[in-house]
Amino acid sequence: MTGADRWLLPDGIDEILPPQARRIEQLRRHLLDYLDNCGYDFVIPPALEYLDSLLTGTGKDLDLRTFKVTDQLSGRLMGLSADTTPQVARIDAHSLAPEGTSRLSYCRTVFHTRPASLLASRTPTQIGAELYGVAGTSADVEIISVMLSLLSEAGIEGVHLDLGNVGVFRALADSAGLSDEQQSELFDLLKLKCQTDTLAWVERELSDSRLTEAFSLVASMQGSASALTDKFARLAELVPVAAQQLSDMTQAIEALMQRFPQVSITCDLTELRGYDYHTGLVFAAYVPGYGDAVAQGGRYDETGADFGRARPATGFSADLKVLAALGQRQFEAKETVAAPASDDPSLWQAITDLRTKGYRVVTEANGDVAGASQRLQQNDGQWTLVSA
Amino acid sequence: MTGADRWLLPDGIDEILPPQARRIEQLRRHLLDYLDNCGYDFVIPPALEYLDSLLTGTGKDLDLRTFKVTDQLSGRLMGLSADTTPQVARIDAHSLAPEGTSRLSYCRTVFHTRPASLLASRTPTQIGAELYGVAGTSADVEIISVMLSLLSEAGIEGVHLDLGNVGVFRALADSAGLSDEQQSELFDLLKLKCQTDTLAWVERELSDSRLTEAFSLVASMQGSASALTDKFARLAELVPVAAQQLSDMTQAIEALMQRFPQVSITCDLTELRGYDYHTGLVFAAYVPGYGDAVAQGGRYDETGADFGRARPATGFSADLKVLAALGQRQFEAKETVAAPASDDPSLWQAITDLRTKGYRVVTEANGDVAGASQRLQQNDGQWTLVSA
Repeated sequence: MTGADRWLLPDGIDEILPPQARRIEQLRRHLLDYLDNCGYDFVIPPALEYLDSLLTGTGKDLDLRTFKVTDQLSGRLMGLSADTTPQVARIDAHSLAPEGTSRLSYCRTVFHTRPASLLASRTPTQIGAELYGVAGTSADVEIISVMLSLLSEAGIEGVHLDLGNVGVFRALADSAGLSDEQQSELFDLLKLKCQTDTLAWVERELSDSRLTEAFSLVASMQGSASALTDKFARLAELVPVAAQQLSDMTQAIEALMQRFPQVSITCDLTELRGYDYHTGLVFAAYVPGYGDAVAQGGRYDETGADFGRARPATGFSADLKVLAALGQRQFEAKETVAAPASDDPSLWQAITDLRTKGYRVVTEANGDVAGASQRLQQNDGQWTLVSA
Repeated sequence: MTGADRWLLPDGIDEILPPQARRIEQLRRHLLDYLDNCGYDFVIPPALEYLDSLLTGTGKDLDLRTFKVTDQLSGRLMGLSADTTPQVARIDAHSLAPEGTSRLSYCRTVFHTRPASLLASRTPTQIGAELYGVAGTSADVEIISVMLSLLSEAGIEGVHLDLGNVGVFRALADSAGLSDEQQSELFDLLKLKCQTDTLAWVERELSDSRLTEAFSLVASMQGSASALTDKFARLAELVPVAAQQLSDMTQAIEALMQRFPQVSITCDLTELRGYDYHTGLVFAAYVPGYGDAVAQGGRYDETGADFGRARPATGFSADLKVLAALGQRQFEAKETVAAPASDDPSLWQAITDLRTKGYRVVTEANGDVAGASQRLQQNDGQWTLVSA
């Protein structure tokens, strides 16, 4: 390797220089403060854990995306965290007060062996919030509201919200008595969003006309939330076991439309992202001109069970670097004060006082200080600020 | 593995829960702001890099401490960053403006295969600053001043500063014409701080009485900075090639004593920590009751050369989690406002307004909100704050 390519970074891994790094740090603070204002307490999960703990209950997809290393102290395999949600679920399950509601937030780098999509970084800065212990629609509405508010705080406009429901597909698959293999086949077909193939499969595999109609409805259930009311009602009739989920979903949509009239909301029951660990309402936010979701999440009531405490859970996450790139929120830059290079002890005192008060004071090292608007100057023995 | 031990963390790896996580986040902001006030621009180096780039010019010690993974996209080996300094040196060498001074700061998790010491975490949160392009004492004094001020900002009292100089040992070894093997033997002896063995080795290996005396002086050069003046002078006489380094060091000590009268300063020329990449003045800060350095750094003028740009460089780093544990600085907790669970659109508007203004407003989910000091209540159709 020559000196010239020694500084090449691996694909999908970036370094962030000033002033962009400063902007990301300011946005990080603003958004974490906003999550705190919503009642979400900051936690710092470990970046590295035993693989068994890290991948408990999360499914194969995350396993493939997780970097593995050997722990030299124990000889056991460890993984670099690829998703914060299961770790926060573990924290909720074993480390926090056993009763009541937990609201937790986080912001940290996660690591992916391969980018999650063509646009994605392999080291996203995952920021997010998780709500534990609240069942029912109010929790879904709360967490989606926090997500939409957070996007707005980042200065992201024109947000579109897409809602799915893994629970409806699960209920339907259970009541049809689908085998694991059949579930997985149907799941793949729905993911491809090809209605014709899905319907052909359903007609071939299922004899019950009621179920055939129900799966056809699911496969065609994409569009503006308000236009799907009739289909929701018919589906609830066909599959009574999914009726509660569908009515909760309708209720959530109504509450969200009222709170966020500027956000367009669509439903897509074939959206089964995160099927491995999600259990109910799933959601993703999109903006025009960006091909991936800018934030996403969903309900995952079962995850805590693997750590001895199953309870209602929902949450969302986003990549802070994406929010910084797409968001319009600006942060003020600080003005710089230049200080002469001098050993005068009273100058050092003046510099320290200004810095403690929040001024940015830079000592001239090789000549001058770039971009200084003010300068420390000695007048009658006193160091004072003058225009640079 | 049973449910009970699924949540055990590997040795030396920790998770941080509220309220401790909040305190660390507040301290992080305060200290990064202070570094910004000192003129140091925030950068975010990649957490993962090709191993060749990561370990260029850093020596074997860092290699052993670095976790390695295979890049599935290129098949090449990557390493998890174990030390931020060489990465920031690379950023300075290739990514930033080619002339003038660079001042850079950072704060991020680094990863160690084994803890650097008995007390150390394997995932320290490394915070630090690096100064490029300034030769001479003024840069050493600036960076040590920033470090000492930062410790003071963290609320750490009773700081003791220990100064060494890798350059003096290098100059002496060069003028004695020591082979690499001899250097390494002598280095090991000095590190053990055993004067008798060191002197025996020097007398056996070196015939020149001038050099024997010089090495004896180095081996005995430990103690209060002011008490070492005579020894410094004699050493400069014996090894003229080290005279400049010694006089610079004296000058730096004088400047630091003037700026930080409350800090006790000692010198130790047998302190060769970081000998692999340091080139001149090295330093470490200690506090009573903690067996490791709380912050440390030194000059490493050559590192940039491997990336095509050798220039003067010095910097320091610390573990933010250690500073949070040892420091006394307190941060105010926010008061909580409880909001009733209600679908009233005007309530949602009131909650959003308060959060945007900086209030922490938590919606009651299962009954009440813990620790709320105020509550949103509807009076005559208006939502107002009342005592909880």
